[in-house]
Amino acid sequence: MSRKIGVIGLGAMGAGVAGSLLCAGFSVHAYDVRSSALERFAADGGVPCASAAEVGKQCDVVIVLVVDATQTDAALFGEQGAVAAMRPGSVVIACATVAPELARQLGARVEAAGLQMLDAPVSGGVARAVSGELTMMTSGPAAAYAACEDVLAAIAAKVYRLGEAHGVGSKVKIINQLLAGVHIAAAAEALALGAREGVDPEVLYDVITHSAGNSWMFENRVRHYLDGDKTSLSAVDIFVKDLGLVLDTARSSKFPLPLSATAHQMFMNASSSGYGRDNDLSVIRTFPGMRAPTDKTND
Amino acid sequence: MSRKIGVIGLGAMGAGVAGSLLCAGFSVHAYDVRSSALERFAADGGVPCASAAEVGKQCDVVIVLVVDATQTDAALFGEQGAVAAMRPGSVVIACATVAPELARQLGARVEAAGLQMLDAPVSGGVARAVSGELTMMTSGPAAAYAACEDVLAAIAAKVYRLGEAHGVGSKVKIINQLLAGVHIAAAAEALALGAREGVDPEVLYDVITHSAGNSWMFENRVRHYLDGDKTSLSAVDIFVKDLGLVLDTARSSKFPLPLSATAHQMFMNASSSGYGRDNDLSVIRTFPGMRAPTDKTND
Repeated sequence: MSRKIGVIGLGAMGAGVAGSLLCAGFSVHAYDVRSSALERFAADGGVPCASAAEVGKQCDVVIVLVVDATQTDAALFGEQGAVAAMRPGSVVIACATVAPELARQLGARVEAAGLQMLDAPVSGGVARAVSGELTMMTSGPAAAYAACEDVLAAIAAKVYRLGEAHGVGSKVKIINQLLAGVHIAAAAEALALGAREGVDPEVLYDVITHSAGNSWMFENRVRHYLDGDKTSLSAVDIFVKDLGLVLDTARSSKFPLPLSATAHQMFMNASSSGYGRDNDLSVIRTFPGMRAPTDKTND
Repeated sequence: MSRKIGVIGLGAMGAGVAGSLLCAGFSVHAYDVRSSALERFAADGGVPCASAAEVGKQCDVVIVLVVDATQTDAALFGEQGAVAAMRPGSVVIACATVAPELARQLGARVEAAGLQMLDAPVSGGVARAVSGELTMMTSGPAAAYAACEDVLAAIAAKVYRLGEAHGVGSKVKIINQLLAGVHIAAAAEALALGAREGVDPEVLYDVITHSAGNSWMFENRVRHYLDGDKTSLSAVDIFVKDLGLVLDTARSSKFPLPLSATAHQMFMNASSSGYGRDNDLSVIRTFPGMRAPTDKTND
């Protein structure tokens, strides 16, 4: 009998993780609010469930890969949530990017229910979710890790273990998102200035990616933009949310973050202008005369 | 007889380039306002000159590697400047980071004097200047390149040729500086939030450099910071100047650059607080409770 592993949330990231687990030989039980996602999952050999509670009832390890804190809360503690159905000692792996304080509270509530939790946000994007090579920024008690080593090995190339306390994984993740968000907005600003000054964007890409101005995000997002690639990356609204978490966390101790605040305004501007669900480099629309990344192939 | 090549400016970058040229077998003639720099250069086998004009008189190729537009102007057109002394058809390689419009004007003035110019800002830092592996972002007429191919090969690992018109090299360079400056300020902001939230900075460095939040500057500057390394990198005042050039260029066509403007304010805050000549990550001093990078070893 294969070990049963649960996945709640079959968006691009969750579907990739579920696929990695199937490849690794686990029996994967999953739930998503969208029946279309469940049908695709079933066609790939997964076991679709009617609710998060049914996932929890079947599995001793449940990975929650939804968008935000509200969805995580609903998946775990809502009506038909997983926690009440899970066997004592089972493990919840909470992967959504949430405020560190919220991760701490979730951990306490999961433990109060007799279960264990890893605070375990992920990085690496859809391609690495599919290939089972995510980076995970995790914290939680040693016993929780011990109960899911095989699962972590199947979905991640690198699992950072950042301590016993819930919230540390989420702190490191939001600091990564601070940098990622500012770097995407900076890439947009650099491309926009280049366009304004008549610099060939392919030349700019080539020079910058070989110079001190390079970033992971510049290399990844600008290549995608120049290729007119319409495949989905992370959306503008993800950075409205994640830079919001960064700023909320800092505000709770009255700590100033001038670049994060500026980048957040840029992403909110793009979102309010109707581009919230577009790829995140669509923040370039906030610069005068700049088209969205995916407009390129419509010339 | 070795070919005579001139270098004006023997700061960290200029001295590195002069050394690369000596290694490549050129007879190097140089001038610097500081006699101490000239003495070190002479001890390494170079020919010290009493003025920029004397360099120009001796050499058909003169590299100007000073800090800014004012110094470039003085080196080329000042009293005892190089241009008036150079033979017709000789080449000026102008390497300081300057406004694109200024580079265009310099080129026109150099050509009006019967000489040729490459607009040729450099990137890569002191270590790569010393090893002859700079990146150069250049533009200018084909004849100017033809007259100094051997010189470019001796000092640079990569020479981007961005067109015939002076100013294109400088445009690409300031866009690189836009990204570099924003990324340094973002690295400082991320480190500061990490410190505020009690995250181990070594852990943060490890995770970020393996995640989507990474940048060339984060990797380079934060490693230097965590090592308590006191060797000189680029200074806070370099980014006060370079982000100023970025903003001036955009302002001339009324183009907004919100992140560049914010980062520029942060560097000016650090400079006005007395840290202008300190390593550029000293911009972290603008965050409450944060010490300068080089304070670390004084604990």
